[in-house]
Amino acid sequence: MKLLSAHRAPNPRRVLMFIAEKGITGIEVVNVDLNAGAHRTPEFLAKSPLAKVPALELDDGRVLTETRAICTYLEGLYPGPNLMGEDATTRAFIEMADRRVELTLLLQIANAIRHTHPGLAALEQPQFADFGRSQGEKLLETAKVFDQLLQQQAWMAGERFSIADITAFCALEFARGLIKFTPARNGLQALQAWRDRVAERPSAAV
Amino acid sequence: MKLLSAHRAPNPRRVLMFIAEKGITGIEVVNVDLNAGAHRTPEFLAKSPLAKVPALELDDGRVLTETRAICTYLEGLYPGPNLMGEDATTRAFIEMADRRVELTLLLQIANAIRHTHPGLAALEQPQFADFGRSQGEKLLETAKVFDQLLQQQAWMAGERFSIADITAFCALEFARGLIKFTPARNGLQALQAWRDRVAERPSAAV
Ligand SMILES: N[C@@H](CCC(=O)N[C@@H](CS)C(=O)NCC(=O)O)C(=O)O
Ligand SMILES: N[C@@H](CCC(=O)N[C@@H](CS)C(=O)NCC(=O)O)C(=O)O
Repeated sequence: MKLLSAHRAPNPRRVLMFIAEKGITGIEVVNVDLNAGAHRTPEFLAKSPLAKVPALELDDGRVLTETRAICTYLEGLYPGPNLMGEDATTRAFIEMADRRVELTLLLQIANAIRHTHPGLAALEQPQFADFGRSQGEKLLETAKVFDQLLQQQAWMAGERFSIADITAFCALEFARGLIKFTPARNGLQALQAWRDRVAERPSAAV
Repeated sequence: MKLLSAHRAPNPRRVLMFIAEKGITGIEVVNVDLNAGAHRTPEFLAKSPLAKVPALELDDGRVLTETRAICTYLEGLYPGPNLMGEDATTRAFIEMADRRVELTLLLQIANAIRHTHPGLAALEQPQFADFGRSQGEKLLETAKVFDQLLQQQAWMAGERFSIADITAFCALEFARGLIKFTPARNGLQALQAWRDRVAERPSAAV
């Protein structure tokens, strides 16, 4: 299998971290240069029609896109350690946690960066700076909700590490790098402590 | 079980349509008045901390939020007819299709409506009208991609009806009602024909 990825982009990183947590070896990683528009060539669009990374080329020639869908596929091939839930009920609760993180924290961070950062102008056109700044403010409210959650439980989906922790960590790392947002700077100690615990895992180095 | 829902809101409608496709009976549906802020009371937030519908109250007292997570849970309880895939590979490809629809079509429609429509000002503050209009333009590009897809296959995820068709249909119905967007008005015949086929299903009446 071959993973079409992009350096430092948060969504490919989610898949790379998932692969590392599972200890999967043998997937070739190919870097797609987003700033050069390498994801808008006819060849790339034939694989990923919405012009996004990550995309996983399977050995039978099919291509799977969408971060969480790629993880679902890999979890089927490599069941252990389980990161998405063993049965439908556990899968549903972990999916809830993962979606909450993705559709608030990650989306607000992505919007805040894509609409304000000059380095993202090649990808987001037009940029709406007011909207981006407002998303940055909403991000702080969202981060407070997760800080409260982590005062009560060890991990995003409950008492064990899961895909939801990967999504949240990659989102926060993107924010730290590009808009200098950290939980600690905003007085959110539980969220910071959780982040620092995730950062110690070998998979965080990808 | 009890479903906390809201009249005409697209995400609760996805769950209601999923329930109708499965022929599940006996789930009580409770309307939450979003315009009156009934989703921001402490009582509601204890169930749905991000202040969103749908939320499914289980018989054991736990509450599940996030549209797709609720569907994952119900698919586990009521396996037939299958709408999300029987094995991990099929689940992954249907999840890919569903996410593509949700994170482009539905998200752009929601942004276009929430940031421009006076009726949504109670939910989206501040509204950024320029951003909303731009999302409406991107929606047209996205709709073209799905129109091309449906020139080659019968349903959003391939050769059978799935949860991805539910997501896309509820998104387009929201757009038709609130920003008068239809595929036909934009010359997208394959997408319109698909939409009209879905509209004939009994589940579309929810
Ligand atoms: N919904 C997609 C989103 C993927 C995505 O947004 N990828 C970014 C990199 S993190 C990308 O390809 N951006 C290129 C662009 O926006 O033009 C997923 O879950 O994989
Ligand atoms: N990610 C959530 C989104 C749910 C959502 O946005 N629901 C809307 C109704 S369609 C809502 O509750 N809006 C209330 C608000 O925005 O204040 C899901 O998939 O269920």
